[in-house]
This record gives sequence, structure tokens and C-alpha cells, in this order.
Amino acid sequence: MDKADSIHVVVVGGGFAGLRAVRNLALRGPRGLRITLIDRRNHHLFQPLLYQVAMAGLSPADIAVPIRTIVRRYRNVEVMLAEVTSVDRPNRTVHTNMGPVPYDALVLACGATHSYFGHEEWEEHAPGLKTVEQATEIRRRVLTAFERAELECDPQKRKELLTFVVVGGGPTGVELAGALGEISRFTLGRDFRRIDPTRTTVLLIEAGPRVLPSFSEELSRGARRDLERLGVSVRTERLVTAIDDSGVELGEGEDRERIRAATVLWAAGVRASTPGPGFGAETDRSGRVMVEKDLSLADTPEVFVVGDQAHVEQADGSLVPGMAPAAIQMGECAANNILRDLRGAPRVEFRYRDKGQMATIGRARAVAESGGWKMRGVLAWLAWCFVHIFYLIGFRNRLLVAIQWAWSYARFRRGARLITDPDWRQERQAKDPTVERH
Amino acid sequence: MDKADSIHVVVVGGGFAGLRAVRNLALRGPRGLRITLIDRRNHHLFQPLLYQVAMAGLSPADIAVPIRTIVRRYRNVEVMLAEVTSVDRPNRTVHTNMGPVPYDALVLACGATHSYFGHEEWEEHAPGLKTVEQATEIRRRVLTAFERAELECDPQKRKELLTFVVVGGGPTGVELAGALGEISRFTLGRDFRRIDPTRTTVLLIEAGPRVLPSFSEELSRGARRDLERLGVSVRTERLVTAIDDSGVELGEGEDRERIRAATVLWAAGVRASTPGPGFGAETDRSGRVMVEKDLSLADTPEVFVVGDQAHVEQADGSLVPGMAPAAIQMGECAANNILRDLRGAPRVEFRYRDKGQMATIGRARAVAESGGWKMRGVLAWLAWCFVHIFYLIGFRNRLLVAIQWAWSYARFRRGARLITDPDWRQERQAKDPTVERH
Repeated sequence: MDKADSIHVVVVGGGFAGLRAVRNLALRGPRGLRITLIDRRNHHLFQPLLYQVAMAGLSPADIAVPIRTIVRRYRNVEVMLAEVTSVDRPNRTVHTNMGPVPYDALVLACGATHSYFGHEEWEEHAPGLKTVEQATEIRRRVLTAFERAELECDPQKRKELLTFVVVGGGPTGVELAGALGEISRFTLGRDFRRIDPTRTTVLLIEAGPRVLPSFSEELSRGARRDLERLGVSVRTERLVTAIDDSGVELGEGEDRERIRAATVLWAAGVRASTPGPGFGAETDRSGRVMVEKDLSLADTPEVFVVGDQAHVEQADGSLVPGMAPAAIQMGECAANNILRDLRGAPRVEFRYRDKGQMATIGRARAVAESGGWKMRGVLAWLAWCFVHIFYLIGFRNRLLVAIQWAWSYARFRRGARLITDPDWRQERQAKDPTVERH
Repeated sequence: MDKADSIHVVVVGGGFAGLRAVRNLALRGPRGLRITLIDRRNHHLFQPLLYQVAMAGLSPADIAVPIRTIVRRYRNVEVMLAEVTSVDRPNRTVHTNMGPVPYDALVLACGATHSYFGHEEWEEHAPGLKTVEQATEIRRRVLTAFERAELECDPQKRKELLTFVVVGGGPTGVELAGALGEISRFTLGRDFRRIDPTRTTVLLIEAGPRVLPSFSEELSRGARRDLERLGVSVRTERLVTAIDDSGVELGEGEDRERIRAATVLWAAGVRASTPGPGFGAETDRSGRVMVEKDLSLADTPEVFVVGDQAHVEQADGSLVPGMAPAAIQMGECAANNILRDLRGAPRVEFRYRDKGQMATIGRARAVAESGGWKMRGVLAWLAWCFVHIFYLIGFRNRLLVAIQWAWSYARFRRGARLITDPDWRQERQAKDPTVERH
């Protein structure tokens, strides 16, 4: 890349990877370095706690911070609320819905979305959990199911309303299922008069042989027991073959089984965001871009891909996992390599430092492992709370989340039990039933 | 009404009036009294702070509490999440989308919505502020306008994006305009690089001769000065004659004037919710039901209408204002009269005890008056904070709101600056620009 007076680095994506890249470039870059951070959302989202928004424990604003606020002190950083439509590598230009943005170096950190394995029509019936809007939609569906069950006289229909299916036994699926088990048994139990929320069925469906496959077998077994104690039925080695508005179908042929459920949540497949048509880089099956050891692209070394969007192999051949610590490390590495280019220093290879992983199960249990260490139970849960509050961006959010967790722990209540409607307009139906709902 | 063993009172609406009626019936009613509270929302909303959600100062869940949680300790109260479609007074039955509900006594407390004075097409361009969804929609529009202005090169278009029009100079309009003035001058000022948020135009349009017409002339003048100090241009005696996607039109004929603005907010007209077709009671111009002195209907004394939905005159001929304290007093009075009927005691007439009124202007000023007392400035603002935190339902919310106000006061920041999209589905457009947004 040019070592002219004014170097322009464009970073796409304000997640963990993108923000870390921006920070390192801003703090350690030379004079004349300009940085533009493009995101289609105005906020950074603390994804690891998103399931708490879906489960009515936290409010969206508790885990989301305006990107402008985060980078306000870096005077050489501009923020652009725009949607990237394509990346023109030969002409070093990012095209957005707000116009083209030329770059000298580019860091793509667009993250991942859900994959329904070619069954995009399942999304309508089984929302995933990647955005604030999806979290509030899941919250709406779960709370509405209990409300409708309270008013339902037909026992069969009531049973369906009180059946929740979570597809996917990774950390998100386990956390959702655990929270659903806990909510139905403890939080909502005393609020309803007619239904018995302890009769709620929560099913966790995993295609592989065990939940939390990235954890050790011992913790995985423990997590399953913890889930079952919260009333969650764990079904492993079961493949979801259909999802519609009446529930899910598992298995095929003779093995086929239908589960009638009003609420289905998707926590199974992940697909990397694509950089738009014409990008022309090699990707893996999940859409992740194959990068060099320095996280750049072979034919355009000024373009880096980091975070969940990148396919990076470790020394043992395994993939660097799609987790916040890995994304942060990649963002840091890409920024360093850009700065090394500017100094004329050789680039460094990315090396993932595994800091371990954690997942909570309900209100006061968790599993955690780091290196040789394994933890499970209340202590692991306390460690989980501490780590998540510590890494949350913004003092205000840390304080608010700590208070709300303490409150919900002490009172067995969830503070954000709001059912909101996607439509903001006045609900004319109530005023005049002859007018159709728009 | 029958004095049988089991008396069923139905209360429609979980606002201030409805909740107070339920509470009094539950706490002071005889054995065998059953109460059903019907609301189409699962939460009670603390309306006086809704503008703070619209202005990104608070999260929806900070001012909304699940109705079930509020009434959980009253064992003879059932909550029904349903929409009332009509009320059949001759057969003493409330019809809802979840089926009919018969009653022995009925309290209607359905509140009010916006009125666009017959121009319902204005709503699209100028949302009002009555629900959580409308508040987050206003927040989205305001924050998006600043983001778009930051990327706009055409100075004329940028000016339009930075022009905010608030229609209606009552407390809500004044609070919205004051917060907009403050946000653009102080909160967002340091977050943008290209726009100068202090160049923002905030216009407050009032058809009458002064803002806050329900306050004394002295406070009204003071409020206007406070608004102008925050950069708000107050235009009184100007009637809005058109609203479309490019702005508003004021006046008619030669006096006609066009204001180009990207964001228009509606805080002008209010219309009472109607009890559905066939209710057949007399209403005033704003749709409020004319009630007897005991708040019941003349021909069906077992039906009461309270809160913003009722037209109640005071001794001096003036209307009881549409405020929370008045709604609470009406709910209390209706409940008392139902209980007096059961005891065979004569009903009492409703008498409004005026506790005064308050409105804030920006971050640290307010006007307040109560009886002969008048207050303005920082002290009035502290009183406003105290009263609003005190009357907020739920200890958790009081704590969270107090912390967030302290934080935003100290840091000049707003914590809930989230732009969210009404559509929760994955944003396919970004992945494949050839697919149209659904």
C-alpha cells in the first residue's frame, strides 16, 4: 500500500473484531492515518448477552453501545452508518448505499448470520438470535405463548403453546433452553392463574452426539444434567427435517417424528456475511473467506478479513472458533499488520491464544474451561458473570447489568418482560374493527 | 348489580385508572369478588416518561412493568391479554378477540390515542407518542436523521435532515422539543465529525397563543424562554395545514409557509379510545364518553368510564385534565362506587383534587405549579425528578431510572441511543442486493 501522507484505512463492521482493529489503528497509527468505520447499525452489540434480551432479563440498550460513543475520542476515526453492497478490490473501493468509499487498506469484519441450510423458509417459524430485533421478536413470541396458553381452554392446544423447541446444542442453544426452563418453572410460575408453567416442555435438539460439542465430554455431560434438572429434555443425534407453523419434524423415514410446538428457536447453523457480489475470494462451506496466515487475501494483501467472517486454521488444523476473544485477537493482528506495512516492518502471522470458553445454564449454573481447567456449577456461573460484566463496554452498562442480575437473582424475576409489536402505528383495529390491520 | 356470592368485575385497560380500580377492588372488596383485568398489552406503561424513551434517555423496560407482576399478589384478580372489540351493555358482556367476557360491573379505562383531526395520512410522516413502539420509532427517526446528515454533502438536504418539527405545545411537545434542543447541542455534539449539531433547527408549532396553555401565563412565558435558550424556535398561533414526507405546511392563503424537515413529531391532538361499535353512549368531540357524576353511565349504572376515556366536568365547568393523578382518582372513585353498591351504601360523586402539574424542559429545568405555588428552573426540575421516580412502579425501575438520570446528567450522554429496525428478519439486502427487501 502507498506510504503517502494520508493513508485511509476502511474497517467494515463494528463488532468485536472491527472495533479492536479501529482502536489499535487509532491509538498506534502514525499521523495522517485516517480511519473510516462502516456499519449498517449504529451500535456495537455485546452478542454473548443477547440471549438475555431474548429471555427478558436485560434491555437491548444494556448490551448495545452507539459506535460513535465508543470511538468519539479517536479524532482520526469517522463513523459511517451505511450498508456495504460490494467491494471492488481491483479499484480499492467499498461500495455502499451511501456512495463509494476508496481505501488504501481494508479490514472486513462483517461477522456472521444464521444459516438455515438452504431452508430459508424456516426463518419465519424459527427466528435466530443475532440482532436486537431478533432478540425482541423471540421475547415477544415466548411471552405471548404463555399469555395465549393462559386463555386457552383446549388442553391439546395449551400443550402446544407451552412447548418450546430450541434447535442447536451449542452455547446459544444451551443458554436459551436453560433460560426457558428456568423462566417457566420459577419466574412466570407465580404470575399465571390457570396454567401451570412447570408443565412447560422445553426441548433442545442437537444433531450431534452431545450438547456443547466444543467443550470437554465431562462438562458436556454435566451441562446436560443441569439442563435436565431445569426441566429441559435434551435430544441428541436428532436432525430437524422440517419446521412449519405447527412445530418441527425430526428424522426421516420410519424414524420420523413430529413435535407440535408454538415456539421454535433457531440456534443451529451459522453462515458468514458475504462481502457482496464480485468480491471473488475463495470461501469455505459456511461462506467464511479463506485468508493467508497474516489474515490478508493472497492476491490483494491490503485487504484483511477477520472475525467470524474469516476461515483461519490453527496449527492443529482445527478452525479458530467464532468467539469474541478470537475476533478481538484477529482485529488486533490485522491492525498490527497494516501498521507494520507503514513502518516497512514484516507482517506477523496470526496465532490464536485460546482463553477458554463458558456457557451459562439457567440462573446460577455454568460450565467453563480454560486450558486444562474445568469448572461447573455456581462458581463457574460467578466467573461467567464476572467475565461478562467486565468485558461489557461502558461503565453505565456494567452497572445496570450488575444491578439487574442481582435483582433477578434475588427476586426470581425478569425485568424486561415487554411484548412489543413490530408495527408502531396506532392500532386501528381496536378502535374500528371494520378497518383492516395494515 | 346482583349481590350474589360471586360478583365479577371486569376492568378494561391497565393504565393508571384501570390499575388503581383493580387495586382498590382487590384490597377492599368482599370475599367472592372476582376481578378480570383486560388489556391488549402485557405491560403498564408509565406514560409521563415515554418521551425519555423517544429521546434515547431511557429503555422501554425502565418505564414498563408487566401487568401480571403488578397484580400477582391479588389472588382474586385475573389478567387477560386480549383486545376488546365491542361492549354489549344490554347483555353485560365484553367481546374480545379471545372470546366474550360477561360482567356484573364494568370499568372502562382504555385511555386515549392521537388524533390527526381527520388527517390520518399524517401519521406516517409525523408519529405520535403513546406506545413503546411509537417511542422507539421516534428514536429511530431522530438518530437516523443525524446519521444521514453526517453523510450528506448537499447543504440544503443536510439542513432539512437537521430540521425537527414538533407539532403541539402541550407538556409532551415541550418535553420533546426541549430534549431535541439539548440532544443536538450537547449530547450528540461531540460524536459527529462533519455536521455541527448546534446548527440543528428545532421548531415547536402551537396553534394557540402560548405553549403549556394549561399552566399560568407566567410559567408559560418562562418555559418559552427556557426552550429558546436550548435553541428551540417556538411558533405560536400557527396552524399546521399539511404534513408530507418533505415537511410541514403552516397557515393558509397568503400566510401559507412551507418548512422542509426530515423529522416531524406529533404531540397535538388526543382522541379517546372508543369502546367499539354498538356501545351507544354519548361522547364529546374528542370521543370521550359523557359520564354521570359518579362516573357511571346513566342508562347502565353498572358501567363506569374513567381516565382519559371519560368526559368529566369540574364544578367550574372546566374538564378534568387528561393526567395521571386524575386517572388514578377516577379509578379509585369507580372502584369505591362498585364496593358501595355491594354494601348497599349510596354512591359518591367524583371530585377532582388538583395536585398540580409539571413539565421538564431539557436536562435541568422544569416548570411546576400546584395550587397557588409556582416553580421554575432547577428546583422545579429536581421536584419533577423526585415525583416521577417516586410514582414509577417497581423498585427496580426506580433504581435504574435514577442511575440513568444521574449518569446522563453527569456525562451529558444518553444511554439508549439504539437505532432498531421494525423488521426482525435477517437483512438479506446486504447479502444479496438482487433480492428485494420484504
